[in-house]
Amino acid sequence: MTLTVGELGESGVLRRILSRLDAAQVATLGPGDDCAVLGVRGELVITTDTMIEGPDFRAAWHSGWDLGWKLAATNLSDVAAMGARPIALTLALAVPRDTPVELLEAIATGMNHACQALAPGCGVVGGDLGTAPVITAAVTALGELSGRPAVTRAGARAGDTLAYAGDLGLAGLGLSLLFAEAADKHGNAQPDRVAELKSASAVNAETLAAQLTPTPPVGLGVVAATSGATAMMDISDSLSIDADRLARASGVRVELESELLLGGFGSQRGVDVPVAAMLTGGEDHGLLATFPADVVIPAGFAPIGRVLAAHLDPRVTLDGEPQEPAGWDPYVLRWPGA
Amino acid sequence: MTLTVGELGESGVLRRILSRLDAAQVATLGPGDDCAVLGVRGELVITTDTMIEGPDFRAAWHSGWDLGWKLAATNLSDVAAMGARPIALTLALAVPRDTPVELLEAIATGMNHACQALAPGCGVVGGDLGTAPVITAAVTALGELSGRPAVTRAGARAGDTLAYAGDLGLAGLGLSLLFAEAADKHGNAQPDRVAELKSASAVNAETLAAQLTPTPPVGLGVVAATSGATAMMDISDSLSIDADRLARASGVRVELESELLLGGFGSQRGVDVPVAAMLTGGEDHGLLATFPADVVIPAGFAPIGRVLAAHLDPRVTLDGEPQEPAGWDPYVLRWPGA
Repeated sequence: MTLTVGELGESGVLRRILSRLDAAQVATLGPGDDCAVLGVRGELVITTDTMIEGPDFRAAWHSGWDLGWKLAATNLSDVAAMGARPIALTLALAVPRDTPVELLEAIATGMNHACQALAPGCGVVGGDLGTAPVITAAVTALGELSGRPAVTRAGARAGDTLAYAGDLGLAGLGLSLLFAEAADKHGNAQPDRVAELKSASAVNAETLAAQLTPTPPVGLGVVAATSGATAMMDISDSLSIDADRLARASGVRVELESELLLGGFGSQRGVDVPVAAMLTGGEDHGLLATFPADVVIPAGFAPIGRVLAAHLDPRVTLDGEPQEPAGWDPYVLRWPGA
Repeated sequence: MTLTVGELGESGVLRRILSRLDAAQVATLGPGDDCAVLGVRGELVITTDTMIEGPDFRAAWHSGWDLGWKLAATNLSDVAAMGARPIALTLALAVPRDTPVELLEAIATGMNHACQALAPGCGVVGGDLGTAPVITAAVTALGELSGRPAVTRAGARAGDTLAYAGDLGLAGLGLSLLFAEAADKHGNAQPDRVAELKSASAVNAETLAAQLTPTPPVGLGVVAATSGATAMMDISDSLSIDADRLARASGVRVELESELLLGGFGSQRGVDVPVAAMLTGGEDHGLLATFPADVVIPAGFAPIGRVLAAHLDPRVTLDGEPQEPAGWDPYVLRWPGA
């Protein structure tokens, strides 16, 4: 029998969710009181991110587990991008009253599995349940710097090597595939098509996995920091947009090289990825970092360009040509049908 | 000219919001990077809470400033309820694309003013902007324990005095007033009626202020902790529900006394508040605490009952009679028209 959250009520839903969550190592008091209590040392980093049904995801494409995984992964990558180790997440979840409780359990399980896989020791320490017209999830993530300075996006210097770790452009190809093959002409998501697409080819399966259940290289954030990264950020909107942000914050220009991009990321998980997709895809959640020229780029990162002195636009060039930032702006870009 | 968020775009909206926010004392790096960086010491507390247009508030009743104030206040009270000092908030805000930018600026200003008034030194350190079919705001709050143990809801002991600080039942009366006088028969909020109601009488104005812009006694959280409070929580759903939770967590029974309730809270801000409203009102966000019998109850708190040994229901009695928990369950209770 499928219970809805309206039938089970808040405390019953909460019990079901909490039973799916492992304790965070840092939590000296877990969920259930007004606050959780965390034993932390030194400087922390904190970030928050929301996923809302419609603008950010389609329930017909994302299972609850996928959604929970992606919620955790996208926040963990922001913590990693500061050179920090993720220690705790909170989850504020609001859903329509007729939502099956199973969906919330699956979201919790997906978050828990993402923490185990991407950031062992990190866990959900608290949350909030409510109602909303569509599924609405806000996650806040905390990370420990363990005495190291945070790696901001403002530290890149002329002469540095620009490097990247993670999938690049694949998530954007996944979104295009969904709209091309799993939506009607109005952009409405078609249920059941995702499973069909995944089983149709390994290329489809990998492309969709990058979009639906991204696996950012969270552990490489600390590695980059200890290796001497001068600047770092995660790519959320697109390489061209986020490289532009890094360049502006650092007061430099970033020169991307298509040969390096194709060498490092032209084939990912058996999928051919064109340079245009790498530049504008968005939702990659990999790590864009700069390293001094005399530093050995840590394993997992591949060089994709270099940092040049500049005080004027363009901030990003590709093989010497100005590269217009293009990708995701939540208030401007419209999905088909959104 | 009124710009919408869709016309201004993410980075423009962000700049407008950030200009309304004072820095948190604890922030060594503020908003603008993948994460904020916080210089913290010892154990922290963390909590998260969401407000969604429709189930949690009506845009026709709440100005943006009110909404921002309430968002901050309700999270600050959860931090206070652990005996901690609030140090930082994050805000994840999603709105329809045709929302005027002014509304987001007003929300930011309201949050900033609530921090200044209720928890000086605390501020918004980071956030996230997105789109949603209705206004959706999730706040996470952090607090410092400064070496003290957290005051949980599980520490009440038989013989303790039960005390309360803050408004009690007034916010619930305010909600009833709004539905009676500022909504149509379908429960749809009527714009402009709030201003009319406020100016009609001081009683109305105070009752509505308790609902729309609550002022929880945030500073009294640390005071209660240093005075020896054995248990504490903030009242969010109602006194009868939250006293039941405290009693269950502590393995005790809570005896409320109507004479004490009326003596301490029968008249608040010039408004007569009946005991029934105190018991079931909800959204008070004051502090319910227990103190050993030999402790002088700190100023700002008033005794409302005592803690008795018990291992069975009922967990809450009023003048010796069982008191059924009643108030707010987001998944069960329906507002008129919701």
